[in-house]
Amino acid sequence: MIIVMKAGTEPGEISAYCEALKQRGFAVHCSVGTSQTVLGLVGDTSGLDAESIRASHLVEKVLRVQEPYKRANRKFHPDDSVISVVNGDGKESRLGGGYLGIIAGPCSVESREQVVDIARQVKKAGAGFLRGGAFKPRTSPYSFQGLGCEGLDLLLEAKKETGLPIVTELMATHQLELYEDVDIIQVGARNMQNYTLLKELGRSRKPILLKRGLAATVNELLMASEYIMAGGNDRIILCERGIRSFDSYTRNTLDLAAVPYLKRQSHLPVIVDPSHATGVNWMVPLMAKAAVAAGADGLIVEVHNDPENALCDGEQAITPAEFASLMKILSGYAALEGRKPGVSA
Amino acid sequence: MIIVMKAGTEPGEISAYCEALKQRGFAVHCSVGTSQTVLGLVGDTSGLDAESIRASHLVEKVLRVQEPYKRANRKFHPDDSVISVVNGDGKESRLGGGYLGIIAGPCSVESREQVVDIARQVKKAGAGFLRGGAFKPRTSPYSFQGLGCEGLDLLLEAKKETGLPIVTELMATHQLELYEDVDIIQVGARNMQNYTLLKELGRSRKPILLKRGLAATVNELLMASEYIMAGGNDRIILCERGIRSFDSYTRNTLDLAAVPYLKRQSHLPVIVDPSHATGVNWMVPLMAKAAVAAGADGLIVEVHNDPENALCDGEQAITPAEFASLMKILSGYAALEGRKPGVSA
Amino acid sequence: MIIVMKAGTEPGEISAYCEALKQRGFAVHCSVGTSQTVLGLVGDTSGLDAESIRASHLVEKVLRVQEPYKRANRKFHPDDSVISVVNGDGKESRLGGGYLGIIAGPCSVESREQVVDIARQVKKAGAGFLRGGAFKPRTSPYSFQGLGCEGLDLLLEAKKETGLPIVTELMATHQLELYEDVDIIQVGARNMQNYTLLKELGRSRKPILLKRGLAATVNELLMASEYIMAGGNDRIILCERGIRSFDSYTRNTLDLAAVPYLKRQSHLPVIVDPSHATGVNWMVPLMAKAAVAAGADGLIVEVHNDPENALCDGEQAITPAEFASLMKILSGYAALEGRKPGVSA
Amino acid sequence: MIIVMKAGTEPGEISAYCEALKQRGFAVHCSVGTSQTVLGLVGDTSGLDAESIRASHLVEKVLRVQEPYKRANRKFHPDDSVISVVNGDGKESRLGGGYLGIIAGPCSVESREQVVDIARQVKKAGAGFLRGGAFKPRTSPYSFQGLGCEGLDLLLEAKKETGLPIVTELMATHQLELYEDVDIIQVGARNMQNYTLLKELGRSRKPILLKRGLAATVNELLMASEYIMAGGNDRIILCERGIRSFDSYTRNTLDLAAVPYLKRQSHLPVIVDPSHATGVNWMVPLMAKAAVAAGADGLIVEVHNDPENALCDGEQAITPAEFASLMKILSGYAALEGRKPGVSA
Repeated sequence: MIIVMKAGTEPGEISAYCEALKQRGFAVHCSVGTSQTVLGLVGDTSGLDAESIRASHLVEKVLRVQEPYKRANRKFHPDDSVISVVNGDGKESRLGGGYLGIIAGPCSVESREQVVDIARQVKKAGAGFLRGGAFKPRTSPYSFQGLGCEGLDLLLEAKKETGLPIVTELMATHQLELYEDVDIIQVGARNMQNYTLLKELGRSRKPILLKRGLAATVNELLMASEYIMAGGNDRIILCERGIRSFDSYTRNTLDLAAVPYLKRQSHLPVIVDPSHATGVNWMVPLMAKAAVAAGADGLIVEVHNDPENALCDGEQAITPAEFASLMKILSGYAALEGRKPGVSA
Repeated sequence: MIIVMKAGTEPGEISAYCEALKQRGFAVHCSVGTSQTVLGLVGDTSGLDAESIRASHLVEKVLRVQEPYKRANRKFHPDDSVISVVNGDGKESRLGGGYLGIIAGPCSVESREQVVDIARQVKKAGAGFLRGGAFKPRTSPYSFQGLGCEGLDLLLEAKKETGLPIVTELMATHQLELYEDVDIIQVGARNMQNYTLLKELGRSRKPILLKRGLAATVNELLMASEYIMAGGNDRIILCERGIRSFDSYTRNTLDLAAVPYLKRQSHLPVIVDPSHATGVNWMVPLMAKAAVAAGADGLIVEVHNDPENALCDGEQAITPAEFASLMKILSGYAALEGRKPGVSA
Repeated sequence: MIIVMKAGTEPGEISAYCEALKQRGFAVHCSVGTSQTVLGLVGDTSGLDAESIRASHLVEKVLRVQEPYKRANRKFHPDDSVISVVNGDGKESRLGGGYLGIIAGPCSVESREQVVDIARQVKKAGAGFLRGGAFKPRTSPYSFQGLGCEGLDLLLEAKKETGLPIVTELMATHQLELYEDVDIIQVGARNMQNYTLLKELGRSRKPILLKRGLAATVNELLMASEYIMAGGNDRIILCERGIRSFDSYTRNTLDLAAVPYLKRQSHLPVIVDPSHATGVNWMVPLMAKAAVAAGADGLIVEVHNDPENALCDGEQAITPAEFASLMKILSGYAALEGRKPGVSA
Repeated sequence: MIIVMKAGTEPGEISAYCEALKQRGFAVHCSVGTSQTVLGLVGDTSGLDAESIRASHLVEKVLRVQEPYKRANRKFHPDDSVISVVNGDGKESRLGGGYLGIIAGPCSVESREQVVDIARQVKKAGAGFLRGGAFKPRTSPYSFQGLGCEGLDLLLEAKKETGLPIVTELMATHQLELYEDVDIIQVGARNMQNYTLLKELGRSRKPILLKRGLAATVNELLMASEYIMAGGNDRIILCERGIRSFDSYTRNTLDLAAVPYLKRQSHLPVIVDPSHATGVNWMVPLMAKAAVAAGADGLIVEVHNDPENALCDGEQAITPAEFASLMKILSGYAALEGRKPGVSA
């Protein structure tokens, strides 16, 4: 961490300030310029707030050199992390480290037929995982809130029928016990900085699909993953799903550059959600292709067998037939990127 | 709700679509134009997603006329809501409906002396409520996370010593039982759309201080309050605390126009947090004055007796002396706005 | 245009209001609901401001159904527009309508050797156009402002040497006469709503490369193109080059969904500038691939033979060798997208 | 400027790099740490791009300590600048340095009666300057574009009739000769980075009202003023008029904290445009009060005698009667802020 002292600070004040930093365990390099003094802090500054340093009346600016995340940092873990789940057929559904993992399914579970039918179709098309919402975060308390526990049961039936591992969102720590047979737990964008939830998931042994918040910087997303990893769980999938910007022609603004940035800074796999990012189904295949071209390790796509009558987000769902067609198209892009299939042979 | 059908839709398709809407309980007015047909839905559309309507391939555009919030809506509750808490001196600390309520205190509770000392000083200067963090949401898992239960106990001691009602943040539903003696429960910006938390607080009888999320629209803030009110708790204070924008010369961008907008749309009191909005202490008094001039019902201000050594957010805290000076200055603005003191005589 | 009248408006007021609209040449369909009346305007509303309609105290909401752009609208011009320029070898450099056109060159022209050398290398690698800045818009008046007229001359020399058509930015109408031998005139992001410039370019017969403003919506970009087309010049290339968002890990936020949206709404070709969008050279090839996968008609890429000593934006330039390598990789993506080479055989 | 070299850079490379910096005229302080070397540059770095420094493969991070603006910087010009214009009554209309200057008038000049009538009324209410648009920047080429030269003539008539100095927008350098009798030239938000225009205005001797761009940072606004000042014209008024954010309940997001920030960093007067910032007339008085409370040196307010039939932006205009009432209310706020009237006695 580089600390620029204010011009005119007395040498005595600077010495005292350096002494205080040393007592907190840092080595301090002091560079005296003609008008300003610059301090370089050596040591683990990940627990040090730049804000608390700025609170001193002696300090003009602070520049963090070291990233504040450690466990998520590729510097200390150069190899790609891979998420792998054994599915009901004995095959492995994989994501990351060269495997292109596809998660597909309805926004929300609505009925046994619906979810089993969709599961069968997305599996046949090559998806490695089934997604589906049981507990749904909705902007209005008067909107459909998901089938809850019944929805979870239906997802588990679809898992039994098809063998596909399931991915579903957890909204509260007290529901964690209901998720025993869930394969991957999703943290929604609105909960990305729900630190109570993140800490609890740090104690879980299940992979976590962590969605970027609507106004979260990529570094805040990495810090959110660090919360989970600090608790001992390092099986995390990062997900770019669109951010808020001034334009509203799409539901959110897909920030695809996040994919290469996150993959350079971290070893964690990075996937893209083209459905929430755009909010309109005809754009989903286009942004799915772009995501793979940008280096994504996978996709999470909303698929519904009757989008026009979906209880939730029908506007952004594609049909199973459109999904099957997309999967074929994607194989060409995966080949160009040297990606292996997300489901083992 | 106005639904614009796509040009070229067959009359038969339109009739069938209208019929389906009628079966969902809406009266439908159909206006046939030369190129496009427009439907007007009459009835309570608050449970109807504009997105689900847009999912139909027959629909071109949807325009919501009715606000999707009901209990928070001033149309159905024209009078200002007032939050009033009897404090330890038998006086009332009030906020809203003409009363300018001031909440002040440290970002986080650090020690008994710290919090009691600050409480005494802000009370003397005219604050009606003491704020202080026990459980702190921090971006980094390696930063100080608050004193937790011990912090709550210290806050309660400060309450006993000074009589000031206390305001503190709740981060998880399972901690609710610890908050029995807390007077106002704060929901932080990062939890504004933590719907599990909001639903649980709907069952509480305590006033809720609901902070606007970093990327939440004002209408989403109203919908978040609607979640709490739908559960039966209508004692809510809305708080503008700055939003994310492209500029970063301040920590957040204070959106003061939210104050008059929220007050026109809703009967709930609206306060401003100039400390988080700007992130720098010298700006706090300036934005506090502006907030009162814009019609705010109150303020929540970070006050620390030793900002340079604060364990959290010292950069944005003002000292008790600066707070006392601010309170004097604010009285002139409160007088111009016809505001009554937040603490009864 | 749909106009929702305020609840409680008297029938007489509504009739008078409708009458006034009819006198402005619109047919008005009036749909009287139980609580509110909705008017549908039929006719060309492209000259009608939604704002001026909203100014009436009788009006609650306004919804524009028809797009406000006509000449840029695909509805009235279903076929893709193609930009084609005959280059010095007698071949055609093309962009749009299935042709993938690549524009490459330095941020700013620095010397004869520099620009000629780069031109030769990008031509060899397959670029169809040479870009280079002569007059440079810089944030600081103390930064290098470009070589000006001398820079233009050097570009023309590079054109003579290589036959590549040249693309360069125009900053002021009075310089237009200097651009006689320039092949494509660029309007920079900061000038996207410089209406004086746009009107003047409407009178030009040269193709215009119109960059999206940093905070311009996609519809505002289309309206800016409409300004040029309204003047009679319909040879326009739209360019997505990143927008401002709250995150700053890249120089701008590349909004790739703009590509399919613009292409669906308009017949104009759409290209992407991955250099300005990201601001860092290692991301350029990744975002270039993603742009092609998203359906872009071309790319504009900064290439410099000595990025570390570039007088401008060296951080985002790739070397000629990196560009040649990118072009090879892109050919695979172009094939998947069914794109033809931007330079005729 | 602080330059953090990449870990692992060879001492020889660092020496060579320092040498190159010294040859560009900077003194370099080199601080060798255990893992990284930090360079401090001493000298005038305002002409040095942080980006060009970052382009080196040896450099990890760059931190600018010195502000890149000099003439606009309060450090080198501690006293407030005041803009003062002698009006037709021989009085002075003033703005800045303790004088609260009010600029009022219609969005666009529509007729002689309109502009003279409004001018008389705003003068009577205490305005020091008349605003009015002759050349209007409009999003659509099909919208009313202003009366042009005729509009300028009508403004000058209103000036003759009332003595009020006039403020009007200039959109192109070639029109500058028409502005000889204009008192203050306005640069619109969309032209804030039209550097050709800024440079030309640097050669003018008239005060410039410079509006902040929709997505311009406050530092970019200061750099735009620096462009004008670098040309020799230091009579500049900065204007906060709302920025683009993700929320659209107001036309723009008024960023009031910009007022104290700009006034701390610069000696230039800072005013606020509550009309464009909000876009709705009932909010204008509220934000006007807040602006004065935040320390603004003045306001620019849209006033129209028939807002419902205004040719432009009627939705945000207040009537002369509302303006007169606002001026009375503002006097209380001005008194609290120690502001003197903007028109001399």
